[in-house]
Amino acid sequence: MKCGISILGSTGSIGRQSLDVAEKLGLRVCALTANRNTALAEEQARRFRPEVMAMYSHAAAAELKVRLADTPVKVVAGEDGLIEAAVHPQADTVVTAVVGTVGLRPTLAAIYEKKRIALANKETLVCAGRIVMEEAKRNGAEIIPVDSEHSAIFQCLAGGRPFRTIILTASGGPFRGMHREELMQVTVEDALRHPNWNMGPKITVDCATMMNKGLEFIEAMHLFGARPEQIRVLVHPQSIVHSMVEYPDHSIIAQMGMPDMRLPIELALTYPLRGPAVAPALDLTQVSALTFEHPDLEAFPCLGLAMEAARMRGTACAVMNAANETAVELFLNRKIRFCQIYEYVRSAVEALPASDSGIDGVLEADREARRFVLGKV
Amino acid sequence: MKCGISILGSTGSIGRQSLDVAEKLGLRVCALTANRNTALAEEQARRFRPEVMAMYSHAAAAELKVRLADTPVKVVAGEDGLIEAAVHPQADTVVTAVVGTVGLRPTLAAIYEKKRIALANKETLVCAGRIVMEEAKRNGAEIIPVDSEHSAIFQCLAGGRPFRTIILTASGGPFRGMHREELMQVTVEDALRHPNWNMGPKITVDCATMMNKGLEFIEAMHLFGARPEQIRVLVHPQSIVHSMVEYPDHSIIAQMGMPDMRLPIELALTYPLRGPAVAPALDLTQVSALTFEHPDLEAFPCLGLAMEAARMRGTACAVMNAANETAVELFLNRKIRFCQIYEYVRSAVEALPASDSGIDGVLEADREARRFVLGKV
Repeated sequence: MKCGISILGSTGSIGRQSLDVAEKLGLRVCALTANRNTALAEEQARRFRPEVMAMYSHAAAAELKVRLADTPVKVVAGEDGLIEAAVHPQADTVVTAVVGTVGLRPTLAAIYEKKRIALANKETLVCAGRIVMEEAKRNGAEIIPVDSEHSAIFQCLAGGRPFRTIILTASGGPFRGMHREELMQVTVEDALRHPNWNMGPKITVDCATMMNKGLEFIEAMHLFGARPEQIRVLVHPQSIVHSMVEYPDHSIIAQMGMPDMRLPIELALTYPLRGPAVAPALDLTQVSALTFEHPDLEAFPCLGLAMEAARMRGTACAVMNAANETAVELFLNRKIRFCQIYEYVRSAVEALPASDSGIDGVLEADREARRFVLGKV
Repeated sequence: MKCGISILGSTGSIGRQSLDVAEKLGLRVCALTANRNTALAEEQARRFRPEVMAMYSHAAAAELKVRLADTPVKVVAGEDGLIEAAVHPQADTVVTAVVGTVGLRPTLAAIYEKKRIALANKETLVCAGRIVMEEAKRNGAEIIPVDSEHSAIFQCLAGGRPFRTIILTASGGPFRGMHREELMQVTVEDALRHPNWNMGPKITVDCATMMNKGLEFIEAMHLFGARPEQIRVLVHPQSIVHSMVEYPDHSIIAQMGMPDMRLPIELALTYPLRGPAVAPALDLTQVSALTFEHPDLEAFPCLGLAMEAARMRGTACAVMNAANETAVELFLNRKIRFCQIYEYVRSAVEALPASDSGIDGVLEADREARRFVLGKV
């Protein structure tokens, strides 16, 4: 078992659960990073005693430095600070749980140092999947997915390759079964009411639009070397089967568990070993009957859009992702309606050129897409 | 891929499906064996051109010799004939699909020759699990299960060991949900009406009593080195999830597929490769909702009895198995009622001593149990 970890994004939902798992496994926490939540960052620093604590916000870093003046914790700032945390020499594994493209360079830095990446940052693969997977291969760095779906696929692929189809399951979100017209009226509160998972607001809205499943579709392509036509999305409202793999003989291997992110987090930290159990056991006699249905691409066009973008070259996925992040933010701030998220994202994907020029090109496409969406409001 | 196979029991349900799979995979059929169905044996011999065709019945062998006089097929007889088929030098894999303890010595003979065993004969492990697994290990012979449940567990264990629990699924048979009193009245025709699987009469009755699941419980212990308390039976009436493995982190890996024995047969022949698909694909949007419930051990006491026998030493399982086979035969011949199957088997297990003296002891216990049951009618 690996014994030192860094967590990028320790104050978010995955970051906090990663600390919970790390504590239960008795892992050494070498470095943590956060954006600007200094109160929680201070609490975590005092509890887990990392050597390095990075705040992305320089102002927050200055504040935290004062708060932690009586401790030996080294407080650093900005992207350079995140990178320092990512390459901490005692960390074997880096949990990348920051939200957004800010995770890109620190993740690459950890890959160059041959760290194991417990990957929870979607943007890493959505925006720069080809680059990141190539660098991981070249440097011999393992990438173990933390998303429950990709962790499930990773586990189901232990039986060997080649696979025939990856079956990505989706809860369907809070609006499953609703028609396009009904979705015109939904509010922020409606969108934040996810039936099965307790997550941050951005990803919860992505579940409601099903863009989340689209982003996972793109991630799965990169992680498992799948062609778009090898990935199928099935709506499975009970969120018990976290995803499946169909083999060439028509055998399907599925992974099941309680909807608890600590299970995939733990696996990413302990793999190839497993346990002790941190997540609760699944009692199949106590859950509802398991059902599966096709997604409604008319009511949830973001999923179809992501599948289209997955087939485009260059920065199309980066543009889509940044446009979506900005549009969701506008929706959460009640500046646009739920259905406008899709409209804004599609117009960005259609308007902006898909370049093909490395990480700088990805970050430039990201900035451009944000400007484009903000310019439309 | 292995390219030569022998099939012990080629005229039974699994044997015929094995030939279907072998034909589709383009495998060479080296040897076949049957009991006394000379008409089908002749047809198979003419179609698949094995070098050796063994009939367990000497009379049937004499008849087949005449029928096949115009062919180069060598017809042999009795247990020695079965062994000759099992050790055929060109066969890499031996499918053991005979019913009963008659499969025991031929299977061991194949193990001594380091053949891969595609194991479909329940008695091999139920009656002599310890001996057979030890010999397989000593000789470096692979045993790949063909039962859909054990094949599922085998596939789910590809993710590595140790496991926490094996979850053996059961359809529940045609009498699921019925009470002990209602079961007093059921007929042979009722018992032969299995909801999901098309199998021979003996195993179909075993599904109705749930003894089949008890035998599989014992097999799973031996195949996967599980303690009895590590195996749980769950009734899953849709027969889509063929079994599961729970890992120490509470992750559950499940194998699913259409209820078609050609899938596990194919896997046993091609492992570690898979495909091309012989069984149809499973479309999860087209099947009923998947449900799981605890088995009713009061209505189906044979399952509990088998779990008890699994914990006993020596020949207890061999006695139970032979007593059950005899009692089922009596039931099929309308000599005893459905609920008497359990009563006869329990009294045999309680009355007969559990010796511990190798294959001869197993076969002697088998004969004694049969005599005991027949003596009670």
